[in-house]
Order: sequence, then C-alpha cells, then structure tokens
Amino acid sequence: MILTVTLNAALDVTYETSSVEWGGSNRVGTVVQRAGGKGVNVARVAAALGSPVLATGLLGGATGDLVRADLDRSGLRHDFAPVAGASRRTLTVVETSTGAATVLNEPGPHVTPDEWQAFLGHFRSLAGSAGVVTLSGSLPPGLAPDAYATLTACVPSGVPVILDADGNALARGVGGAPALVKPNAEELTRATGIPSAVHGAEALRTAGARAVLVSMGPDGMIAVTPDGSWRAVPPSPVAGNPTGAGDAAVAAAARSLASGTPWPDLLRHAVALSAAAVRAPVAGDFDPALYTRLLPEIAVHRLT
Amino acid sequence: MILTVTLNAALDVTYETSSVEWGGSNRVGTVVQRAGGKGVNVARVAAALGSPVLATGLLGGATGDLVRADLDRSGLRHDFAPVAGASRRTLTVVETSTGAATVLNEPGPHVTPDEWQAFLGHFRSLAGSAGVVTLSGSLPPGLAPDAYATLTACVPSGVPVILDADGNALARGVGGAPALVKPNAEELTRATGIPSAVHGAEALRTAGARAVLVSMGPDGMIAVTPDGSWRAVPPSPVAGNPTGAGDAAVAAAARSLASGTPWPDLLRHAVALSAAAVRAPVAGDFDPALYTRLLPEIAVHRLT
Repeated sequence: MILTVTLNAALDVTYETSSVEWGGSNRVGTVVQRAGGKGVNVARVAAALGSPVLATGLLGGATGDLVRADLDRSGLRHDFAPVAGASRRTLTVVETSTGAATVLNEPGPHVTPDEWQAFLGHFRSLAGSAGVVTLSGSLPPGLAPDAYATLTACVPSGVPVILDADGNALARGVGGAPALVKPNAEELTRATGIPSAVHGAEALRTAGARAVLVSMGPDGMIAVTPDGSWRAVPPSPVAGNPTGAGDAAVAAAARSLASGTPWPDLLRHAVALSAAAVRAPVAGDFDPALYTRLLPEIAVHRLT
Repeated sequence: MILTVTLNAALDVTYETSSVEWGGSNRVGTVVQRAGGKGVNVARVAAALGSPVLATGLLGGATGDLVRADLDRSGLRHDFAPVAGASRRTLTVVETSTGAATVLNEPGPHVTPDEWQAFLGHFRSLAGSAGVVTLSGSLPPGLAPDAYATLTACVPSGVPVILDADGNALARGVGGAPALVKPNAEELTRATGIPSAVHGAEALRTAGARAVLVSMGPDGMIAVTPDGSWRAVPPSPVAGNPTGAGDAAVAAAARSLASGTPWPDLLRHAVALSAAAVRAPVAGDFDPALYTRLLPEIAVHRLT
C-alpha cells in the first residue's frame, strides 16, 4: 500500500471567467471544487493506475469536511487526522480568453503541538502497513521545518520514503534520510544554492537523501542514486498544465520503489507519467493513453 | 423592526498579500472571513445605530453554515431560509503594497422553484411584523428577474420597501412599486440608458418606484420623490473604501422611513452615514464619530 501524506491538504477551487479586471470588480462564471494538496494528487494518480493507496494528513473545519466529502466521491481511501483550525483553500483563477492562470494559496490552519503529537501516533500506526510512504507539499503553520524528518523517523526501516517539498521543509526534511527526494530544478536551487541539477542533487545526498530525482520540465529528469546517475528525456515537449506533473512523477516513483524497479525504469515511468499529467487539465489527472504510448519512447542515458 | 433581505448572501473573504503576480503562483498572507452580502451590511449598520433588525434571505451548504456562525458571533438577529445549493463566497484580494483590491464574486447557488415558494411563505410571515423592508443585491441563479417585485407584493401595504439592486433585478424590481429605490449613478444609467441622474430617477419613478435616491460618490446624493427633489453634498471628499457605502445609505434611509423623517433629513443622514462607511475599511462598518460630526455639515438643496 502506498501511504501518501498531505499535512497541508486543501480544497482546490478553480474560478473560470473570460477575463479579470485586476483592481476591479468581477463576476465569476463557474466555480469548481476538488480535494487537493500534492499528496492527494499522488494518491489519485497511483490509485488510477491500480495501486492500493491510502491518503492521510491533517484536515479541519468546514473546508476539511468538503475535502473528505470529495475524497469519498472519488472513491479514494483516506484516513486524515483532525485539527481544530480550518484546512486551506487554493484558488486558481483561469482567464479563458487568454488561458492565464493565477494561483492564490492560503497558508493553512495553525497546527498545535498536541495535534502534531496525535498525528505522529496516527501516522506510525498507518506506516506499519505501508509499502512506500510519500511526503508532499508545504507544512501548515505551527509545524517545525524538520517535520518531514520526524515523520521519516517514524517509518519502519525498509519502507522507502519519498519527499517532495520546497524551501526549509525540503532542506531540513532531507536530514531524515528519505529513500528519494523529488525537487524540481528551481526547488533544488532554492534549497542548495547550487544552479547545477547534478551538483545540487549530490548536495542533497550529502545532507541525507539516499537518492534524488530532479524534474526539469520539458528537459526531462535526472536521477542521482547510490547505484549511479541517469537522465531521461521525453521524445517531444508536451503542451498543457504543468501543475500536478511533479505529483505524477512521485506516484510513478512510489509504484516503482514498491515493486523494486531499477532506477532507469523508475525514471522512464516518472517522465512518461509526468508528461501524461501535463496533458490533463486538472492536477491529479493524467492521460492514460499518452502514458502508455510515451513509455517505450523515453530515452534514458547513464550519466556516471 | 427593519427586515433586511439578502437572497444571495455570501461569505466575504479577504486575502491580504503584499503583491500578486497575476498569471503566477502566490502565497496569501492573511485570510479574513465574514458574513456578507449587501443586505447583511445594511443590517449591521442599522443594528450598530440601535435599530431593531432582522436579517433574512437564503443560505445553503457549508458556506451558509459559516455565514450563520458569523452572524451569531456578531450578535445580529437572523432568520434565513435554507436552500440545497451552497451559498457563494465573494473574494477580495488586497495588495497591501499598492492598496489595489480585486473583487471576484461567485454566482451563488441555483435556487429551485420549490425553494423560492418556501422562502415566499417565510418572508410573508416575517414581513408581517416589519416596519421597513430592504431588498439588496444580486439575485442567485434560478430566480426570475422580477423576484424583487414579487417580494414587494408580499409586504403589507403601508410598510415601506427599499430596493437596492443592479441590472435586470433593478429594472424589473421597480415594477413592484417600492417606496424607495437606491441605485448609484452607474446602476441608474445601466437600468435606464439615461446618463442624467435626475432624468434617470424620473424614469424609474415612471416605471413604478415611488421615490429614488441616487448615490454619486463624492458628489453626494439626490432624492427624487413625490414631495419634491433634493440634492445633498458632503462638506469634503472622504478617502477610503467605497464598498458598503451604498448599504450604509440604505440603512440610513430605512431608519428614516421607519420613523417618518422628511426627505431632506433622510438625505442628510444617508450622505453622512455613507461617508462614515467609506472611512471604515470593511463593508458593514462605519466611523460613528465621523457620522455624528458630518450630520450638521451636509448641505441639502431643493432641486424642484
């Protein structure tokens, strides 16, 4: 079972309108709401590919109830721990006349020390039956920046942990020695100060990560691992919505680590599934036909 | 008792952030939520001035629950009828570096014919003990454009009705012969096609409104009534947030009609309270000291 953790789960709200007068008053055409947060997207993609999945994390307030209701509607297995604060919304304002999308992310509920301790107990019991654990996204207010290292320490040895975070949550999270970290190129540079993806990945390995998967958009991905380094590139650029592409890569990596797939094949699946997610308009979805078609077309080269 | 009707009540959400990258991804600094909709603002202002008030309208879903909870916190008397759809949010994105505010209004829940009939019964029973009724704001999807005329017909004769709406809801609402209509200058021109405020107001009277109060921002207001026409101007422009100024004018007019205040005094109170609302940062609030200070300084001139 793939256990996905979303500490700052969200209700993803999309406003569609022809165009927005910034600084003015606007009527929104349609409002779409869906359970979100990066770990929820990972769970959706892995479940759609047939993997047994359980989504956990923290949820609270009226927004938390709406997230749970949408997860039920989606048939996604979930077991979130409660917090007193209200879970956040993320708002995407899409201007259909231009396709421009503005994203506004609320900070999330303040999590108390007691709520965090209660979650650690909950997480430990779930992690006991997990084959892989994924840790995704921002930390809600109140949590220490090493929260992901604390969670990793709760996972039984031998169960791979994948970390996908940004900023301090990433920089301090690698100290927990996760099996794999998946930053994109910008996140890697922010966390390490190193512009080169390979050198940045090596710095994260020095800091504790056992392997690093760096996503670089249309330039594909590199994997820097104890067994060597590889690069994979899609046959041609895919146009679409890059939100959720990283989550699809984490879903692919989780499935591969669960089944002991070698790194070059993990990389091939991650690049193909990521590209198939770009083609789908909503984060957490992907184009299954494109995934299947791309898989044999991904070129994987050994770097070292 | 002043009965305020808000058919499309809302949770007013304000995002504050230093600046927004439009078309990019942004983190929101603070999130403030409060019960809103124009009729709720009218009720807040009138209640703060000591008038007995009851807020009604339609509420549904998780957002409706949040609106009710905030009205309870505010100590505002309310008795809304339920709908199955979720009440809307209005979002204001304030960029603190520039003060620019972008407003995004959701359309609101679809109201079914059965829900509307149930509300008419509820409204009739409340209107029976009202001294004044105010009808404010947009109509949610599903309601006929003459919904405000239908409501006005349910109010006992002798109980004044004040209508504050835009577009078709205003143009068709005046057919119900409300005692007073309060458009701003732009709404008046949109409804009548006439650029002159006095001539536009006369057109609304011909269409059914007994009196018309036109708000013109820093240029004050005019009242066109069966007893004559007047204009009132504040002594100097007031800087601030004009959202909610019209609702404050409706609150002043409702208090004046309830107590049989002559039109020139009604106009004086409406201009002073409206200016005091501009000075307050949040719609539904006003600066009570400024209201008291401005009252004797408002010049009222007879136009005819």
